[in-house]
Amino acid sequence: MASKKIKVGIVGGTGYTGVELLRLLALHPDVELSAITSRSEAGLPVADMYPSLRGYVDLKFCDPADAALGQCDVVFFATPNGVAMQQTRALLEQGVRVIDLAADFRIRDVAVWEKWYGMTHACPELLQEAVYGLPEQNRDAIRNARLLANPGCYPTAVQLGFMPLLEAGIVDRQYLVADAKSGVSGAGRKAEVHTLFAEAGDNFKAYGVAGHRHLPEISQGLVRMSGDQPVGLTFVPHLTPLIRGIHATLYARLTKEVDLQALFEQRYANESFVDVLPAGAHPETRSVRGSNQCRIAIHRPQGGDTVVILSVIDNLVKGAAGQAVQNMNIMFGLEERAGLNIVPLLP
Amino acid sequence: MASKKIKVGIVGGTGYTGVELLRLLALHPDVELSAITSRSEAGLPVADMYPSLRGYVDLKFCDPADAALGQCDVVFFATPNGVAMQQTRALLEQGVRVIDLAADFRIRDVAVWEKWYGMTHACPELLQEAVYGLPEQNRDAIRNARLLANPGCYPTAVQLGFMPLLEAGIVDRQYLVADAKSGVSGAGRKAEVHTLFAEAGDNFKAYGVAGHRHLPEISQGLVRMSGDQPVGLTFVPHLTPLIRGIHATLYARLTKEVDLQALFEQRYANESFVDVLPAGAHPETRSVRGSNQCRIAIHRPQGGDTVVILSVIDNLVKGAAGQAVQNMNIMFGLEERAGLNIVPLLP
Amino acid sequence: MASKKIKVGIVGGTGYTGVELLRLLALHPDVELSAITSRSEAGLPVADMYPSLRGYVDLKFCDPADAALGQCDVVFFATPNGVAMQQTRALLEQGVRVIDLAADFRIRDVAVWEKWYGMTHACPELLQEAVYGLPEQNRDAIRNARLLANPGCYPTAVQLGFMPLLEAGIVDRQYLVADAKSGVSGAGRKAEVHTLFAEAGDNFKAYGVAGHRHLPEISQGLVRMSGDQPVGLTFVPHLTPLIRGIHATLYARLTKEVDLQALFEQRYANESFVDVLPAGAHPETRSVRGSNQCRIAIHRPQGGDTVVILSVIDNLVKGAAGQAVQNMNIMFGLEERAGLNIVPLLP
Amino acid sequence: MASKKIKVGIVGGTGYTGVELLRLLALHPDVELSAITSRSEAGLPVADMYPSLRGYVDLKFCDPADAALGQCDVVFFATPNGVAMQQTRALLEQGVRVIDLAADFRIRDVAVWEKWYGMTHACPELLQEAVYGLPEQNRDAIRNARLLANPGCYPTAVQLGFMPLLEAGIVDRQYLVADAKSGVSGAGRKAEVHTLFAEAGDNFKAYGVAGHRHLPEISQGLVRMSGDQPVGLTFVPHLTPLIRGIHATLYARLTKEVDLQALFEQRYANESFVDVLPAGAHPETRSVRGSNQCRIAIHRPQGGDTVVILSVIDNLVKGAAGQAVQNMNIMFGLEERAGLNIVPLLP
Repeated sequence: MASKKIKVGIVGGTGYTGVELLRLLALHPDVELSAITSRSEAGLPVADMYPSLRGYVDLKFCDPADAALGQCDVVFFATPNGVAMQQTRALLEQGVRVIDLAADFRIRDVAVWEKWYGMTHACPELLQEAVYGLPEQNRDAIRNARLLANPGCYPTAVQLGFMPLLEAGIVDRQYLVADAKSGVSGAGRKAEVHTLFAEAGDNFKAYGVAGHRHLPEISQGLVRMSGDQPVGLTFVPHLTPLIRGIHATLYARLTKEVDLQALFEQRYANESFVDVLPAGAHPETRSVRGSNQCRIAIHRPQGGDTVVILSVIDNLVKGAAGQAVQNMNIMFGLEERAGLNIVPLLP
Repeated sequence: MASKKIKVGIVGGTGYTGVELLRLLALHPDVELSAITSRSEAGLPVADMYPSLRGYVDLKFCDPADAALGQCDVVFFATPNGVAMQQTRALLEQGVRVIDLAADFRIRDVAVWEKWYGMTHACPELLQEAVYGLPEQNRDAIRNARLLANPGCYPTAVQLGFMPLLEAGIVDRQYLVADAKSGVSGAGRKAEVHTLFAEAGDNFKAYGVAGHRHLPEISQGLVRMSGDQPVGLTFVPHLTPLIRGIHATLYARLTKEVDLQALFEQRYANESFVDVLPAGAHPETRSVRGSNQCRIAIHRPQGGDTVVILSVIDNLVKGAAGQAVQNMNIMFGLEERAGLNIVPLLP
Repeated sequence: MASKKIKVGIVGGTGYTGVELLRLLALHPDVELSAITSRSEAGLPVADMYPSLRGYVDLKFCDPADAALGQCDVVFFATPNGVAMQQTRALLEQGVRVIDLAADFRIRDVAVWEKWYGMTHACPELLQEAVYGLPEQNRDAIRNARLLANPGCYPTAVQLGFMPLLEAGIVDRQYLVADAKSGVSGAGRKAEVHTLFAEAGDNFKAYGVAGHRHLPEISQGLVRMSGDQPVGLTFVPHLTPLIRGIHATLYARLTKEVDLQALFEQRYANESFVDVLPAGAHPETRSVRGSNQCRIAIHRPQGGDTVVILSVIDNLVKGAAGQAVQNMNIMFGLEERAGLNIVPLLP
Repeated sequence: MASKKIKVGIVGGTGYTGVELLRLLALHPDVELSAITSRSEAGLPVADMYPSLRGYVDLKFCDPADAALGQCDVVFFATPNGVAMQQTRALLEQGVRVIDLAADFRIRDVAVWEKWYGMTHACPELLQEAVYGLPEQNRDAIRNARLLANPGCYPTAVQLGFMPLLEAGIVDRQYLVADAKSGVSGAGRKAEVHTLFAEAGDNFKAYGVAGHRHLPEISQGLVRMSGDQPVGLTFVPHLTPLIRGIHATLYARLTKEVDLQALFEQRYANESFVDVLPAGAHPETRSVRGSNQCRIAIHRPQGGDTVVILSVIDNLVKGAAGQAVQNMNIMFGLEERAGLNIVPLLP
């Protein structure tokens, strides 16, 4: 365990992933919070915006121009897409490691990225260096990453659910269905009509069926799990009236008989944050609320050849800030659970 | 239009389908509410249990033994499974028509019914006579029905979504997926732990993946739509924290090129209660809240050969009491929208 | 009953009071919807924005400049504060009657209005003519009103609860407490952070304790009920995670012994939309959901001299659009319940 | 810090206060969980009932008859009212300290207790010895307590809000109003109709206005704070659709001018779990979600002589299990925050 604490900076700490990073890092034994930037809120004590942090975080938001981010060991970007790519090169050159919670470095193919995100990428040359931070898939590369692309929330839940099946090559890769449901915090803390309480409350809907930005990210991961074979994925996200939580219901057609329960249990036997439930279980989103856990159950209804995987995470933790801390722990050689030893809040 | 009002009795008016029937029938222009039975609440004014009905329903619950149900024109059973089958024969013999909102008469094959419902059927000989009350599929038979089996909530949303595809024979019938999400009122007004606010609130989960009672009902309907060809359906129901509403997300693989939007619009062109939304739409459950409407949208993500159908209903209206009233209207030659001319409550 | 339908215009139909007016007016037997204006949405079919209205409202939003509002019999303003006062004079001069659902004409004292609303009033000379539209207090004046100020949501619930006590002069007017709780739709359909689902959901808070705009409106009404004696009111509004509904809990100290239950029952004996519940009852907000009803219960805990009044309404109906329609009915000599004969939606 | 861990037993671990105790104690550095009893669930792994505890709690529920509670250092009763009083004497005689989270030992006057709880007390002689566990009022007595009565949820929020005012003697004690709102988890994990999601969701109501069991408990505390002077309290609890959280809005009439903000800040200056917010603040229930914090704000609307105190807690933490752990810490000479160093979960 490092005797010297890791100096951490956060760019864009006013959104939900920002406050969630602060919740986790405030009690992390090996971390010293050095700076939190926000252009709009510069000068405001962080705990004035988030009273939940009173007594835990004494920092004020500072203007990005004034933040001595170059003196940090690591900087987290909890910013909208397109911000991190503007500042990453300079930080890396100062020897600062970067963890981006947005999408700037998640897609290796710059043309694909630019199509889905509608921007020109500011530093395409870094895309090859960036490490995709799904530890269960990619731990070794993460250890040495200078630049880490933290996965999206849907991609985390969906990839962890499909991974054992695809790695084992026992399903028809051409017909994968991911029917995913997200709590409203996944949309962030932006003033928008469709996420108002009176719009999203007591209501359920699909959205982005024609194409959601997480589709290419998931597909890229599924291809990799499949040994670079092509995959065909239908991904339908839904908005459900809960605050935190993603529930992914995954469908695939089996092409080979195996003991699915054993397959999953073995694949994740050494993973601290993936919990394979007993056969027949139905994971609830609240069973991971506030924690970095992913819980997975495997079903094969009526003994047919369609396998159904249920995968739940807290979108703000394993789907964002918690996974970012897990990645930081790996990058700095800390105990992987440091700062993440949290019992989910139930009820 | 009948100048004489239809005399209606309700058996088991204390649950959610019961109070919903009362909400609809209280303002139905052609109906006279004659009796509402409840063994446990006999003597209690209905409006004391449901203050929402104050000023609209003056009846008291009466003991089933005292209710002159034989003098009604039609009796609705809003009872748990297994009750209607005990009393239906006697009512039919008195010339009373029966609409069962529970499952007693939904499955034609008595062996299948007994397996899924875990009871011996009390009057299997009536199963052949019973008419399955999905008007969009079965209107002619409904007109002359003495005994009507009102469809389940999930089966209504799922069947209306798949029907045009199966009738047209343009999808692979062996690999149908119905990922369905229901509000909590679908579980009824029973004191149970898993539907408590503190259990079901801010939470999302699948349930019954191994096998749900609505599976054989849906399969029976899909087979019928397919010209008695076998179908393979994977049905996964989920509990979502809203009060009313079902959202079914349906997946099928196209085997033939057709204009899907036109196919659906034509199929439902004359249906008052099925609304095919414009291409690209995402129906919300609240857009049908309190109404008998089903809204459907058709998608074909990335132009692939997987079709995605989104189908929403209010589980207590088109999924229960409203469809029962619609069936009553058809059975008695009334205007099909009578008593159902309701603008959904939004927000 | 008028054989000729009333021509109705709505200015600002995109918010929650707008869509609620449309829900009610679409089925009103004596109304013809002539025009709905929205600068930002001009040209868009109303039902495209609100799919709940598909099949019920065929109009498109039109630009205010193009709307022939001068040919309407009555125009409703469902606009932000400060809009109606700009257009009212011109409409009145064309013989159009005006119902403002915002606050422009609710306060008789222009200085008080300007202080609380932070604007200069555009037509202070109309304030004396404007009729405050609380029918239970003011029905006669409403009949002849050209310009009607529809009450606020909190003021409706609070005034109806205090009215019998103050008119009877049996409580200490100097120490009145109104602890009021509102659903989130009361904040309107504006993109704001504090009413996001992830902010207002699973959360409860007071707001505006230092002073809320509804305080002077309520005080003005309570003074009037008290025969122009001064009153001292402490008003604390709270935001509660429900969509629709206001629950006002009112406290006053009795100065005289009377039969409170009888007092309230007699005061509201002829009121169609105020329902005095039996002694000991606890009205629920859902018991009025979607309806124009106000339900009231009277308590005197432990027989002490503090009286507790519980008063619930649907903030969008009796607290806004429904009361506006009720006022229109009175103004045009229609049956007061026309278009408002709605059974609340429960559950 | 004790090098030897405290052996803890829990009687009745299946309810919400039970699982919350487990959440807190599982990570408490000085505690060893020895036994958790449940008659109905004996043999079941605790984590099978509460998957949130997987990996944190390995115990199985055991039958009360088999539990070696006599070897524990302390036993928590997370049972319904009336259970702890049956078993406490025997435990005390074995040298085990007892913390009752139910109401058996909260009221000193046995006649009052028996009237409100409708039972004969099983060990009235222990009522005088029992220490009421509100640390901010009673810390010295708690240190030496063998038998601790953990306060109710409403009583905690209300007493902490009124305490500075009553101790200072600056309000009219005869006219205190506590308008309190609770999340639904306060009703426990019992299968009951009125706390179903479809009943309590999207709904708000008062209850128990005629008299709630927490009234005598609160009154007893307020009297004590007032130097044994009588007090007159009107207490109105409400059920609000959130899972966790109590918001108490308190009203009192000032009889003396003081700096209220300074009064509260000084009173709670040394209290780790009471946070006096800056003047003008509105505490939100979510700002304490999952934590043992109470946050308080003081208002004096329009500068009048009515003071309004806003007090929020998490009913399952500071209102139950957290306060019980805080009391245990005090009783055993541990750091008072041990096991309670938790950042609230927001959003």
